[in-house]
Amino acid sequence: MAEPIRTDVLIIGAGPVGLFAVFELGLFDMKCHLVDILDRPGGQCAELYPEKPIYDIPALPTVTAQELVDRLMEQIKPFNPSFTFNRMVTGLEKLPDGGFRVTTDENEVFEAKVVVIAAGGGSFQPKRPPIPGIEAYEGKSVFYSVRRMEEFRGEDVLIVGGGDSALDWTLNLQPVARSMTLVHRRPEFRAAPDSVNKMFALQETGGLEFRIGQVTALKGEDGQLRSATIKGPDGDVEIPATRMLPFFGLTMKLGPVAEWGLNLHENVIPVDTEKFETSVPGIFAIGDINWYPGKLKLILSGFHEAALMAQAAKRIVSPGERIVFQYTTSSTSLQKKLGVA
Amino acid sequence: MAEPIRTDVLIIGAGPVGLFAVFELGLFDMKCHLVDILDRPGGQCAELYPEKPIYDIPALPTVTAQELVDRLMEQIKPFNPSFTFNRMVTGLEKLPDGGFRVTTDENEVFEAKVVVIAAGGGSFQPKRPPIPGIEAYEGKSVFYSVRRMEEFRGEDVLIVGGGDSALDWTLNLQPVARSMTLVHRRPEFRAAPDSVNKMFALQETGGLEFRIGQVTALKGEDGQLRSATIKGPDGDVEIPATRMLPFFGLTMKLGPVAEWGLNLHENVIPVDTEKFETSVPGIFAIGDINWYPGKLKLILSGFHEAALMAQAAKRIVSPGERIVFQYTTSSTSLQKKLGVA
Repeated sequence: MAEPIRTDVLIIGAGPVGLFAVFELGLFDMKCHLVDILDRPGGQCAELYPEKPIYDIPALPTVTAQELVDRLMEQIKPFNPSFTFNRMVTGLEKLPDGGFRVTTDENEVFEAKVVVIAAGGGSFQPKRPPIPGIEAYEGKSVFYSVRRMEEFRGEDVLIVGGGDSALDWTLNLQPVARSMTLVHRRPEFRAAPDSVNKMFALQETGGLEFRIGQVTALKGEDGQLRSATIKGPDGDVEIPATRMLPFFGLTMKLGPVAEWGLNLHENVIPVDTEKFETSVPGIFAIGDINWYPGKLKLILSGFHEAALMAQAAKRIVSPGERIVFQYTTSSTSLQKKLGVA
Repeated sequence: MAEPIRTDVLIIGAGPVGLFAVFELGLFDMKCHLVDILDRPGGQCAELYPEKPIYDIPALPTVTAQELVDRLMEQIKPFNPSFTFNRMVTGLEKLPDGGFRVTTDENEVFEAKVVVIAAGGGSFQPKRPPIPGIEAYEGKSVFYSVRRMEEFRGEDVLIVGGGDSALDWTLNLQPVARSMTLVHRRPEFRAAPDSVNKMFALQETGGLEFRIGQVTALKGEDGQLRSATIKGPDGDVEIPATRMLPFFGLTMKLGPVAEWGLNLHENVIPVDTEKFETSVPGIFAIGDINWYPGKLKLILSGFHEAALMAQAAKRIVSPGERIVFQYTTSSTSLQKKLGVA
């Protein structure tokens, strides 16, 4: 087992609410580590509608999702949180000393006194394309994201999809792959025009092959892909493929949280409205993933929940210490922590 | 009795939380009127520390109190709320049809289906100077604010204090007064230097008299002041005074709300955490004035409370109407209300 990363508070989910929790916990000197399934902070906001304006964040009459995330990242900078991206939290175990051990799908281990679930609608998980028997290859030669480019070096790579992820990885992996094939249903793409132009240019010089069609069958053994059948306008063709990357978009699943023995209520986690603690003491849930009477899935509600949670978390992280409620406007001590006094 | 001003929701208090309530209520098409004891929006924020930065408003790493208020005023502009400033709400009566009649200390009358108390720490009320018998003159010839300048025309005006209010009104009323005397304990002022310079310039040309000292006694009859005794460095002097304006700062009092039959808990109003409703159905309390387990007197908590309150208020204002929860990011209907679609 890997050496555990120790932190006061482990936050699952680096969306706006998880990020703001770092601020509220930081005011009480608690150090945070965040884990997110995506490859950057921002969660649903940054993933689904980075450029769309939000109008109901108080005192920000209009702000794009990405700008909201950027502003929160700036606000929490004084507390220097650490992040682990591209990982799903898969395991949770209570330690004898009262803390928690949390593990990811890549076997990282975290030990924290408090766990805050700020996972929004759940984990974003890749959509599986409807190809018979694909499960047998997943994690061995079929991947839904690129974690190490070296896994693709010298391979016959097949990328399926028409969005930015498909185009970006086609261009990024093309130099290391033995061969590169991009398959999409139509000649039109939802990706940045510049990437599309680059892809077509590479096709002209023989650097890759673009095919219109759909993958209908896979061949291989023991999880190792050998070839894929592509059904196109002129019929079926079988091409060599030792690695496949389908980019069919993301879907939201509650994920392993559902197995942690928390009380679940229609795929959300019930909490109290005093501390936003789950049925397991020391595990809190804030933002869209929690439920209580009156709950609205608003970002601003998650911010409020983070503030109240931080008080309760402090009592666990520093038992017996007196908690003084202070305002950032008037407290020199808080202003020092924020680097402004 | 004056013709009542009718509105869906009467909001008592135009601080940040009262202002944001206009936004959340407006998204559900409820029209708001706000009453505040101060002469402008912003409440405690704008009154006590307009230029001080606040650091804990989510996604605003640093914002002055005045800027926060300005931003909220811009955000609620599409809902065109109406305001009554310089008034204390003094009366509240339940109407037979289920709404409320609210009256002010200047006898304005409001009728609303819902009342939202967003009065922060209570009403700002002027501090009374320690002069024996002053109560007998209050409201007749001794005032703590200027509501109509005409009340001072042709009068011997005595202003007491050394802050901006004292200096501003000394300069503003000097042209209409028969005589103007400013009394302050010391020759140093807490007011804008420009106002202080103007005051001293007027003294040099005989436009007013500035005296160092304290008012120790008043003379007059039936509430009409005739003269005041000023104890200065050279002893007592009696000067003619038919109007007095003491500006000794403001203090916070819960005020008449305390007499409305609401459950009060250490000078705050207990509410539930689902709707933030008081013990009187149809009267809500949000922001610093309310209490529930876990309550923190944070502006961001008041914002959250406003959002949940608005759902419950809608059920009262439009009974039987189906409430659809929508996001400003994706709902064209909400964007039309905000004037952005």
